[in-house]
Amino acid sequence: MQRYFAIGRNNEYFNLQDDDIRHIKLVMRMKENDKIIVVENNIPFLCNIEDNYKIKIVEPLPLTEKDIPFVSIIVPILKEQKMDYILQKSTELGVEQIIVYYSERGIIKETDNNDKKIERWNRIMKEASEQCHRNNIPIIKIKKLNEIEKLDYNLICSTNNPKNNLKNILKNTSICDRINIVIGPEGGLTNKEENELILNGFIPITLGNRILRVETVPLFLMSAVNYEKME
Amino acid sequence: MQRYFAIGRNNEYFNLQDDDIRHIKLVMRMKENDKIIVVENNIPFLCNIEDNYKIKIVEPLPLTEKDIPFVSIIVPILKEQKMDYILQKSTELGVEQIIVYYSERGIIKETDNNDKKIERWNRIMKEASEQCHRNNIPIIKIKKLNEIEKLDYNLICSTNNPKNNLKNILKNTSICDRINIVIGPEGGLTNKEENELILNGFIPITLGNRILRVETVPLFLMSAVNYEKME
Repeated sequence: MQRYFAIGRNNEYFNLQDDDIRHIKLVMRMKENDKIIVVENNIPFLCNIEDNYKIKIVEPLPLTEKDIPFVSIIVPILKEQKMDYILQKSTELGVEQIIVYYSERGIIKETDNNDKKIERWNRIMKEASEQCHRNNIPIIKIKKLNEIEKLDYNLICSTNNPKNNLKNILKNTSICDRINIVIGPEGGLTNKEENELILNGFIPITLGNRILRVETVPLFLMSAVNYEKME
Repeated sequence: MQRYFAIGRNNEYFNLQDDDIRHIKLVMRMKENDKIIVVENNIPFLCNIEDNYKIKIVEPLPLTEKDIPFVSIIVPILKEQKMDYILQKSTELGVEQIIVYYSERGIIKETDNNDKKIERWNRIMKEASEQCHRNNIPIIKIKKLNEIEKLDYNLICSTNNPKNNLKNILKNTSICDRINIVIGPEGGLTNKEENELILNGFIPITLGNRILRVETVPLFLMSAVNYEKME
């Protein structure tokens, strides 16, 4: 069933974004008494479409249980297409947070239209969340590498022959843990960037011997987390 | 170092495709005595660029050892962009064979310009193989679902509540095994398609509860195989 995120509520009616109402009307061509799912505060509700596209709440739906740890992926800012791809696919695979940083070796330099970027990224993740039936939309922020809040596990995907690998770490995590994973840009983090993170308590790990493009790494990581917790 | 695939050899000189020579000249702007790697029959060679862009063999390079099983991904034919994406990313992640089939629920119907498609797909996988430093290019074929040659493991990604999951199977595989994995189109295989495969000895498995787009599944599978064999 088609799924949308509420932006507010009016007694037993949900408010949706204008874009979503247009989608219901013009793309899905729904009529009175058609049903949709609307998510409010991470809870999905069955809803009925009433006259003039008012969205009446019918009942809350059972929640799916959490099945993987909270993963926060920390990626350099990339060109639009690669960025969109990371956001869409990581959302599908259950990422909870994406932190974007400007790296020393990155091609894209810091500008001040960050708000516009964040708006665009949020839209992509909202649509991906609806499509893959999530009950929440991942959080996205732009931060400096040295401003990242530490979690239970703090990892750096490193190419400098780190002593540990992803599997050894993930094996020991529980679904209640919270994990940060920093991904470097094409060409890797600079020694300065990596050392600062290590001094801050981040642990360099390897993902194996394959040469992966930057935009493939978040998918690899999220797939690995899902696979590790598969029962 | 830049990597290319040989199309032939003339004593101690390799022949490359015209496109590759143009790439060396115009994109990489290499000059006499610059070095490249050329792969012939799965073996990489260090080579020297001589006058008039003749590619002189210097010496064979050490081979990297096989680290994952042979995986053959069987996917429905999809729209160009999704298809390209599957080919590029699966190549990066070490797939050895891709078999494309026309599914009953697929949007794209059978036509006779398959040769042109295969040529295009081969080009994408060749470029991806060069970029991720592989010593071979995955094989790609179009086949009917009932014509697929069986391997050591024959799996179907199923949404019909299968009794086994990917992890239970992969745990027991060795890097010498050969694995077929069938992926259905949007909406899944029809019962007829799935039953025919099951009668032929294929085993339905689940990838977990997430709702993944078709083009995400090959990446999830290849990531899982790499993760399982990570040491």
